[in-house]
Amino acid sequence: MPTYKLVVQYDGTRYAGWQIQPERPTVQGELLSRLRRICNQAELRVAGAARTDAGTHALGQVASFATGRDWPPQKLAYVLNRLLPLDISVLSAAPVAADFHARRSATGRVYRYQIACDPVLSPFLAPWVHHTRSPLNLEAMRRGARCFLGEHDFSSFRAAGDVSASPVKTMRSIEIERRSEMITITVEGSSFLQHMVRTMAGTLLEIGRGRWHPSRAEAILEARDRSFAGPTLPAKGLFLVEVLYGESPRGSLPSG
Amino acid sequence: MPTYKLVVQYDGTRYAGWQIQPERPTVQGELLSRLRRICNQAELRVAGAARTDAGTHALGQVASFATGRDWPPQKLAYVLNRLLPLDISVLSAAPVAADFHARRSATGRVYRYQIACDPVLSPFLAPWVHHTRSPLNLEAMRRGARCFLGEHDFSSFRAAGDVSASPVKTMRSIEIERRSEMITITVEGSSFLQHMVRTMAGTLLEIGRGRWHPSRAEAILEARDRSFAGPTLPAKGLFLVEVLYGESPRGSLPSG
Repeated sequence: MPTYKLVVQYDGTRYAGWQIQPERPTVQGELLSRLRRICNQAELRVAGAARTDAGTHALGQVASFATGRDWPPQKLAYVLNRLLPLDISVLSAAPVAADFHARRSATGRVYRYQIACDPVLSPFLAPWVHHTRSPLNLEAMRRGARCFLGEHDFSSFRAAGDVSASPVKTMRSIEIERRSEMITITVEGSSFLQHMVRTMAGTLLEIGRGRWHPSRAEAILEARDRSFAGPTLPAKGLFLVEVLYGESPRGSLPSG
Repeated sequence: MPTYKLVVQYDGTRYAGWQIQPERPTVQGELLSRLRRICNQAELRVAGAARTDAGTHALGQVASFATGRDWPPQKLAYVLNRLLPLDISVLSAAPVAADFHARRSATGRVYRYQIACDPVLSPFLAPWVHHTRSPLNLEAMRRGARCFLGEHDFSSFRAAGDVSASPVKTMRSIEIERRSEMITITVEGSSFLQHMVRTMAGTLLEIGRGRWHPSRAEAILEARDRSFAGPTLPAKGLFLVEVLYGESPRGSLPSG
């Protein structure tokens, strides 16, 4: 059966996350109902590379599905975009090998957390950022973040309800950048625990505003206990930026 | 009594416009309830420079109010921003002469209409633009727009329910620009009829996509009849950019 890969962008504000749930709007649910309709295939299934939480956005989520129908890829994207709500867009569609699976074939995920530190937050940024009025010390945040690189037990940054098989994950890079009053924390890893990026961002925010010394990040990591870490920042500041297949285009040399 | 001028930015998506109405969320209503609370003055009134429609946004709406209380301007803005919802922000507050009135003292208003002509619309732009998949001919739009400059009876672009005293308005400038796939129509005038900018944008869009010849704009203007003009584009693409007091900073030489 022909298999297709879709790159999907969404504003997660009004969704209960990616994963389909009864009685609640989800991105997977919206996409699935359109795919079943246009492929005329009631049993069609669609896989996603990452289970983004309620309120989390995506610049480049990847989905895959198999169908009995051959689609010219551009037409597939066009038809889906005509049917999907405005807060979900299919950026591209491409035929892939039959054994491609959006989640199982993925070798890495890139997430970004956005923090605005303007004194006044623009209403046009508010849906996509966490806002703080504190000035932030980026150098301190970068020093604190270094200990996260590599393979670690990230239990201190794991949500209580997380269903991952293991708390051990590999963080390949973590970059903290400022453009004007917007601070971004961009992480790349094989995969992430639930709330991991948001709780790391909350921990680095405590360091950036000077409440905690950078060395505390390492102590928190070693504690393997969620109660040591900073707050889990709101989902609205988090973006799934990109899903990687095969070699990491960002290189394996950690920076930051 | 001390009088203050506020510059206010808002995402108009969930509001029934600027002007206060019973039982419906309005920007004026949100601002007024906070001002009455912090000034402890149940009869306080607040004026706005422009009555933006339901769903229209503002980068620089101006509001004014008189109060019995002296406010350090920065503190006034800070306290309001702590109390206002995230989709309304006070950019600045300043004491003004007692005879200053946001609407009556204004000498001009600048509005901008945003049209995205990407094949795929980003979900992160969707709340702030009108989307078309047609390529647009900017030169044709600029030729069509020229006839709007100066003083005219704009009845062809007036909403049925408009309450303006006269349909005669002066358009000081109209600029049509493209940045990547985003096209903006920026107009400056003394004041505008209800729906005037959105209906002019709808008329120019018909010209830009080649359905109408640029010369048709002048025929529409001369008809003084709403049924001749193009569609009124959605409010979500419209921004009140700036309110002018005294001399026009954009100069009186029309461009575009």
